[in-house]
Amino acid sequence: MTGSFYPPQRTLMGPGPSDVPPRVLGALARPTIGHLDPQFVALMDETKALLQYAFQTDNALTLPVSAPGSAGMEACFVNLVSPGDTVIVCRNGVFGGRMQENVERCGATAILVDDDWGSAVSVDKVAAAFAAHPEASALAFVHAETSTGAYSDVAALCALAREHGALSIVDTVTSLGGIELRVDDWGADAVYAGTQKCLSCVPGIAPVTFSPAAVERIQAREHKVQSWFLDMQLVMGYWGGESKRSYHHTAPVNALYALHESLLMLKEETLEAAWARHAFNHRALVAGLEAMGLSLAVDAECRLPQLNAVRIPEGVDDAAVRAALLRDFDLEIGAGLGALAGKTWRIGLMGHSSRRRNVMTCLAALESVLSTQGAAINTGVALAAAEAVFAG
Amino acid sequence: MTGSFYPPQRTLMGPGPSDVPPRVLGALARPTIGHLDPQFVALMDETKALLQYAFQTDNALTLPVSAPGSAGMEACFVNLVSPGDTVIVCRNGVFGGRMQENVERCGATAILVDDDWGSAVSVDKVAAAFAAHPEASALAFVHAETSTGAYSDVAALCALAREHGALSIVDTVTSLGGIELRVDDWGADAVYAGTQKCLSCVPGIAPVTFSPAAVERIQAREHKVQSWFLDMQLVMGYWGGESKRSYHHTAPVNALYALHESLLMLKEETLEAAWARHAFNHRALVAGLEAMGLSLAVDAECRLPQLNAVRIPEGVDDAAVRAALLRDFDLEIGAGLGALAGKTWRIGLMGHSSRRRNVMTCLAALESVLSTQGAAINTGVALAAAEAVFAG
Repeated sequence: MTGSFYPPQRTLMGPGPSDVPPRVLGALARPTIGHLDPQFVALMDETKALLQYAFQTDNALTLPVSAPGSAGMEACFVNLVSPGDTVIVCRNGVFGGRMQENVERCGATAILVDDDWGSAVSVDKVAAAFAAHPEASALAFVHAETSTGAYSDVAALCALAREHGALSIVDTVTSLGGIELRVDDWGADAVYAGTQKCLSCVPGIAPVTFSPAAVERIQAREHKVQSWFLDMQLVMGYWGGESKRSYHHTAPVNALYALHESLLMLKEETLEAAWARHAFNHRALVAGLEAMGLSLAVDAECRLPQLNAVRIPEGVDDAAVRAALLRDFDLEIGAGLGALAGKTWRIGLMGHSSRRRNVMTCLAALESVLSTQGAAINTGVALAAAEAVFAG
Repeated sequence: MTGSFYPPQRTLMGPGPSDVPPRVLGALARPTIGHLDPQFVALMDETKALLQYAFQTDNALTLPVSAPGSAGMEACFVNLVSPGDTVIVCRNGVFGGRMQENVERCGATAILVDDDWGSAVSVDKVAAAFAAHPEASALAFVHAETSTGAYSDVAALCALAREHGALSIVDTVTSLGGIELRVDDWGADAVYAGTQKCLSCVPGIAPVTFSPAAVERIQAREHKVQSWFLDMQLVMGYWGGESKRSYHHTAPVNALYALHESLLMLKEETLEAAWARHAFNHRALVAGLEAMGLSLAVDAECRLPQLNAVRIPEGVDDAAVRAALLRDFDLEIGAGLGALAGKTWRIGLMGHSSRRRNVMTCLAALESVLSTQGAAINTGVALAAAEAVFAG
């Protein structure tokens, strides 16, 4: 007989969701009110302002899409791309491939710029793609590739797009709140994110922001957006800030309570402090992992602090290690994805998960499980190495 | 300075969301776990079985789409309709019009069957439409029109579609859990619902179910589904019940805890008891409203018990009444939508909101506010009229 579901209390150090702080879960569970209630409308206005802070933008069209990050990605593509368009898509991991799918499903042509998984997007290759395809109307790339743990140079790539009269579409699902991101200063046109990574909110919502140039392109469309649900001209009527909100769909009221609370926590901490915290805990984790004899799969110059791709040592059973971590330590780390499946683990230090307790828990658990499984690692040194970083 | 958001404690008697019971809010706030955690996968399996019960179906492809009801609608259309198709769309309220939008954005032709707002869909008119358009590959209609409060004959309409070799696409957003719905017995092919109506779960998730014939059409598609996020062939890989789940998007973990709990409560009560409860509380509300001198806008033979369209008396200020109910009684009722704006109120008795306390609260509050506003109503009789129904 099916009964109520009581989840275990995990420590979430995979590629997301990250640990959701009690303060956010508390907000989530507050009484549901109507999505047109004046008090809810006030919450929407505050949430928009908090998102503008998180994205570092003044874009008026900044709002949370009522669906997961994948729908945020789709919202950017279906609104900015029309059938027959050409879009340059940078592919250095799983999510670049998903962008290609989006472009093609819009009836447009994707020009692929491929880089090795675990590398940054090559600005030179993108420049060459623009030279070969001057008709390209957009450039799409991922800021922080969740599948590999590498980040790319948003400012340089957006500048290239602008030079060629193209709009930039930027995936910041894993970067928002974790590493420096300045939408306005860097000139990004359409940017989407997720809630369950460095914001440490529950999964299911996708913050997006569109520059004035992107809004202009949306308003000039001749071909109706193929998605009714994600059509920004309609969504704007509900979120747009006119005096009278028009009903589009029922907003996920409680999830937006949680998002508001998590954004408020970010603002209280300040973005700069959050970025520094992610970098600091990352250094401690890496010190511990390297002391143990493990190595990171991504070069330091494009390595994300919030998502650490760790090479799985020879002869170690990937799945058995992750199962033991979950069973014996209630600790989730991520498997490799796509080309990196079986070759790396992905250890997340995102949002509320980016804290000293998690770094130490993870190192202790990994050392225990790897030793038990007979892996050739250095024991008894990882915790001290991490502590040395924390001690400054 | 922005602070934490503490919503008022409303009584929700609009067109949804309905009152969310504490048991569901409690489930919502349990610790987040990973969307690939073995315990979460077990929750997914249970949720699928509970949805099959709620829909009264054995359909293997039964799952909650990770977005609001509007996205559930879109999931049905983009998966079953291809460019060049002809779809008969019944329009007797706002949501039939939205179905037309969906059909056209799929590059298909919508043949409209119009009925008055507040009436049921005419089976005869649909038969005539099939006679005139034998090429139609689908019939789309709304079971319970949230904009008007009228329901239509699902069994008869689905039978017509089947006779003409067309699939049926049925909107049950407001009907699921509130009035009789038997997906398999009635032969509905693609059915979508919402969580925030008669399930009394938080808004943001859309249960869907597809018959074997619908799955066959999806698998035979030659044109890729235009939405990557809603492509059921991809979603199936995550929800499909194969031994190994493949990542598609990050599920809204906490919202699914809540859905599981609300479906469990429905199963504990049983569907038949829930349908009877909705009918019973409706009779009491109507007795009270009529005693007060108010009248319902929908004929009794197609009137929804969970959504009561009440004519706004002459000379009464619609918005002022709703504002006073909210301010003085923390009571939300719904405004009219579309053609009925300013002419009706929509009083919901959905899910957890369908209970004696809410019926009495609503009657008392309406009487107080309408009297204060000088409306010509009978006072001092509504509560007793409702009590007489409750007393049997």
